[in-house]
Parts: sequence; C-alpha cells; structure tokens
Amino acid sequence: MLTRIDHVGIACRNLDAAVGFYQATFGLTVVSRETNSEQGVREAMLVVTDAPPGASYVQLLEPLGPDTPVGRFIERRGEGVHHVGYGVADIEAALAAIGATGVRLLDTRPRHGSMGASIAFLHPGDVGGVLTELVQAPPR
Amino acid sequence: MLTRIDHVGIACRNLDAAVGFYQATFGLTVVSRETNSEQGVREAMLVVTDAPPGASYVQLLEPLGPDTPVGRFIERRGEGVHHVGYGVADIEAALAAIGATGVRLLDTRPRHGSMGASIAFLHPGDVGGVLTELVQAPPR
Repeated sequence: MLTRIDHVGIACRNLDAAVGFYQATFGLTVVSRETNSEQGVREAMLVVTDAPPGASYVQLLEPLGPDTPVGRFIERRGEGVHHVGYGVADIEAALAAIGATGVRLLDTRPRHGSMGASIAFLHPGDVGGVLTELVQAPPR
Repeated sequence: MLTRIDHVGIACRNLDAAVGFYQATFGLTVVSRETNSEQGVREAMLVVTDAPPGASYVQLLEPLGPDTPVGRFIERRGEGVHHVGYGVADIEAALAAIGATGVRLLDTRPRHGSMGASIAFLHPGDVGGVLTELVQAPPR
C-alpha cells in the first residue's frame, strides 16, 4: 500500500533560518517553497543532494500564526519533528483500507498538499503517537 | 555530505505490538531485529515493501528500562518520533565537518548502531529540536 517514506515534517519557528541551517550544516537543497493557507504553514521541501531518486524529503514548516496546527504544536512541544509522510499510489484506497483497520482518519477525504500532492492525515493517537500523513503525488 | 534519510526512529512501549501494527496497518516488512544494550533498546528496522532501493527505514525502539534515553523520552513526551537518521559515506569526516559549524556532538566518536552501522548523534538543541543521527553503513 505504501510506496516509500515521502518526507519527515519538521516544525520550526523561522523558516528562512531553518532552511539556511539545513543548507549550511547538512548540504540539503531546496526543491520547493510554498505557503499553504488551508494548513496554516509556510514550508520548504528539501532533498539530500546525493540521495537516490525516490528518496525522502525533509519538509520544514513554519506556522502562519499561533492558532494553527503547527503553531499549537510548537507552543506545546517546541520545535522538532511534527509528522511523517508516506507515499501511496492511491490515497482514497489507502484511506479506506487504513480506516477499516480502526485507525481514525483526521481527513476522510484528501486535501491539497505540497507540490500538487493529495494528502490526508491519520490520528496520532492510533499510530503510536506519530502524526502520520499519506501523500499521493500529482499525475506527471 | 549526507547520502539520504536513512531512517525515522520511533519510540514505542511495546516493540512486538508496534511491529504488528506497522505490518498489519501499513504492510511494512521487518528486515532486522536486535537488542542494543549500549543504547538501552530493543529495536526493529522495517521497510516499505514497495520502496525503491536506498529508501528509508522505519526504526521502532522499545526501551530496555525506564532509565535509558528512550525510556526517559517516553516518560517525558510519550510514544512518538524519537530521532531522524541520515546516511553518510564517511562518519568521521561528517562529524568533523558538522562539529566545525558549531553543532554540539553527543558522540564525538562513532558507536555501534543497527545492522552493523557506525552511528553518532547530534545535539537536538542545535538542530531545531530534532535529535539527529548520522549513519555510516558497514562495508559490504
């Protein structure tokens, strides 16, 4: 059902500073920057420069304000890993299959995610404390 | 310097239950199980079955007791993402380069990690709240 770990989402207070840190310290490369008002974040997707095709992204997320999911996360737990995103080939089928196992779906229908993807989140309380995202890439 | 996201390390209270959940819900496959007394964990490495070669692992970690790094993490924050591991080709060179940027090294010399790897951790306080691990795979 899953195709790969798509990305690790990391909550930060200052996106530009975090991007600069990952570039300077680890040599990562930014492949996309965008603002997602629906999710209340400004974000950047970075790749490990030497990684093979299909490898995972680092997603840096700055909240647009304190009263957003990532803003509340930082207020409660500080900066750090916010979620893990897994690639899926068919997100509606994956949601149906996972929902049928009893895992609560935070999104019963896909929403718009980074770089044109369709995304949906699973309840961390049913995934061992891990906020888990499914990601279906857009058609090529 | 980095070659890929090697794994996402997830702290859990019960390794067998967590492995069973990831197998049943997401179809992941266990490729290694071991106990690392030095780090105070029992662990399993899982792969997304359909992922391309070189893709990242999910690492599930159960503490051997409460007075271990992962035990204290669960006590403080509950189950969830514990760290992110990046592959490196030469861990001693990577530690020297990253240490020179001012990031504190929790391990100034590599230790034994999963599946024969050499590993070292960076201080989360200098990496935006993310406990970050470097992983050099063993010689083939």
